[in-house]
Parts: sequence; structure tokens; C-alpha cells
Amino acid sequence: MSRSTDIADAAIGTLAAEGMRGLTHRAVDRAAGLPEGSTSSYYRTRASLLQGVMDRLLELDQLEAPDEDLDFDEFVDYFTETLNQWSTGGRLREIARYELILESTRRPELREPLARQAEQIHQLGASMLRGVAGAAAPELARSLAPLLDGLLLRQVTTPHAAPITRDQIANLIRSQLDAVSTAKRRGNRKQ
Amino acid sequence: MSRSTDIADAAIGTLAAEGMRGLTHRAVDRAAGLPEGSTSSYYRTRASLLQGVMDRLLELDQLEAPDEDLDFDEFVDYFTETLNQWSTGGRLREIARYELILESTRRPELREPLARQAEQIHQLGASMLRGVAGAAAPELARSLAPLLDGLLLRQVTTPHAAPITRDQIANLIRSQLDAVSTAKRRGNRKQ
Repeated sequence: MSRSTDIADAAIGTLAAEGMRGLTHRAVDRAAGLPEGSTSSYYRTRASLLQGVMDRLLELDQLEAPDEDLDFDEFVDYFTETLNQWSTGGRLREIARYELILESTRRPELREPLARQAEQIHQLGASMLRGVAGAAAPELARSLAPLLDGLLLRQVTTPHAAPITRDQIANLIRSQLDAVSTAKRRGNRKQ
Repeated sequence: MSRSTDIADAAIGTLAAEGMRGLTHRAVDRAAGLPEGSTSSYYRTRASLLQGVMDRLLELDQLEAPDEDLDFDEFVDYFTETLNQWSTGGRLREIARYELILESTRRPELREPLARQAEQIHQLGASMLRGVAGAAAPELARSLAPLLDGLLLRQVTTPHAAPITRDQIANLIRSQLDAVSTAKRRGNRKQ
């Protein structure tokens, strides 16, 4: 890995552990175990450091869709495992992501990369839901995203939270699939 | 309103507008239009200022449950309206609440009041869902909370997000109600 990637990783860890208030160039130098001034030489401003965090999160989120269509049970298994991985091994990364989401209300320049990240996850979700929902897969992925986000937020911020269960995920997907199909039958597609 | 309440309100606005990094005693003095040092005289430390924000949010969240049981449609109406009010007029307050939720991962002393707030909303939700779900109301309220949190987070952080629709809320409640009832029938109650 390159030096700038090491620094971005240290910045993600610092942001998660210390919040926006603790995210300083010096704190990232310390977290990366590098001489003072190292972070500044790669990310001169605070805005460029936040952009570096954002870009690295996007890169780390590049998941690969499986080659074949998944059926309902396979999708639920995959998703339960992914969410629980994100809330354990990937917990700091998710906290950093929520920090950036809140910060984007103050820094409009973060909105475009966050929207791009959401779109990336959406595309992946839609492609993975093809076997489950057919033509309704993009709409289903769109309706599931904020719900899964809420489960994950609870998970990463509540100590000793019980893991997200397979039943929770299965119920959510089933109900949103029903909702999407009902809307389609009524010829009353959501925007 | 008392001076300390004015200051807590100004602190909520500052936290939402400037984030944890911008929340300083001086910034709150300025936001409240008070002489420098005013905030410090009521909330000496940063911890006590955060506690003041927390307490004030809890106070503002005191909703009153209606006297009579609501049926499904009445509950969905009430809830859709409440969420949309929280994401428009109450938007800054909600951003401040999400900031505190993230901060609680670093400041354990915020966990108890946040848990108390969640419990307060849970009790209210459970009492309001009695007409809809009977004995399953507490469990239904418990399962809905993180999902509604995710919808609201999306809503308050995404510019030009479409309002949360009555259909979304109705679908969520219906599906979680089904899930809770199915689990009950199976004699396999969730913890």
C-alpha cells in the first residue's frame, strides 16, 4: 500500500475514535506512526483530508457481486453476513461513514461522493436482487437502503447490541418486495 | 424560559450547524446573543454542555400519547406527520441527536441518557401501538425504532430528499406486525 493510503486508513481510524473534533493532521500523523507533517504533505487542507477519507471509504466498499443470480435465501444469508461483518470488523469504518454523512450537511462538497457511494451500493444491491425481484430489483434496493442504514447505525453505536438477525433481514426484504409488487400492480409506481 | 434553557437551545443549533468541532462555549455565547462567558457560567465543562444539550433534547422530545387507542390508519397518519415534522421543523434537533449518538461511542456518559431517550420513545410508541398490535405492541415498537431512525437520518441529511410517504410507514408497520405475529404463533418469541 502507498503512503497516502496508510494515511487515509489512519484518518478513518482517527475520525471514528475521536470524531470530527479529534480529526487533526497531527492526530493522523500519530495514528499512522509517521513524523509530524506527513499527513499535511499528502493532504494539505482539512477539506482534502476529508476527501481522502471519503475516497478511501469508497474504495474499501467496492464489493463484488456474485456471478450468478441469488435466490431469496442466498441473498438473505449474504446480506446478514455482510451487515454483521460491517458492524464488527468494519465498525470503525461505518462510524466514520456516519460522521461524513452528518458532516455533509455542513460541507456540500461531501455530498457528491456520498451520493456516488450510495449509488454504488445501490447498483450492487440491485444487481444482487435480480434473482429475487426481477425488474423490481432497483426499486427494492432503493427502498431497503435507509432501513438497513438504520439497523447498522443502531448496531455500531449501541454497546452489546444483539447482532442483526437473519429473520430481521428476511422480513424486511420480504415486506419491501411485497410493497414494491403491490405498487406495480396498482400501476402506481413510486418515484 | 430560563437562561440555561436558552443556552441549551443555542447549543443544539450550534451542534447541528457546526458539528462537534464547532460546538465551543464561545460559539454558543454568540449563537445565544449573550456576552462571552455566559455559557461557561451555566455549563462549565464540555461534558456538562453536552449533558445540557442531551437533557434539553429529551425535554423537547416529550410527546404526549393520545388518550384513546388508535387504529392502524390513525397511527400511520400520526406517525407520517410526526416524522415529517421532525425532518423539517425539527431537522436541526435531529441532526444534533445523531451527533450525540455518534459521540456516545467515545463518551460513555452519554449512553445512559440516550438509552433513556430511546426507552421514552419506545414506551410512547408501545402505548400508541396498543390499538394496532395488542399485546405485541412493545415488541412491534422495538422492531420499528431502528428502521424509522434510518428513514429519518436519510431525510435530514439528504438535500431535496422526498418526504417520507404514508405508504412507506404503512408498509413498514404492517410487515413488522406480521413478523412479530408470526414469531408469536411459532412460540418462538424474540429476545
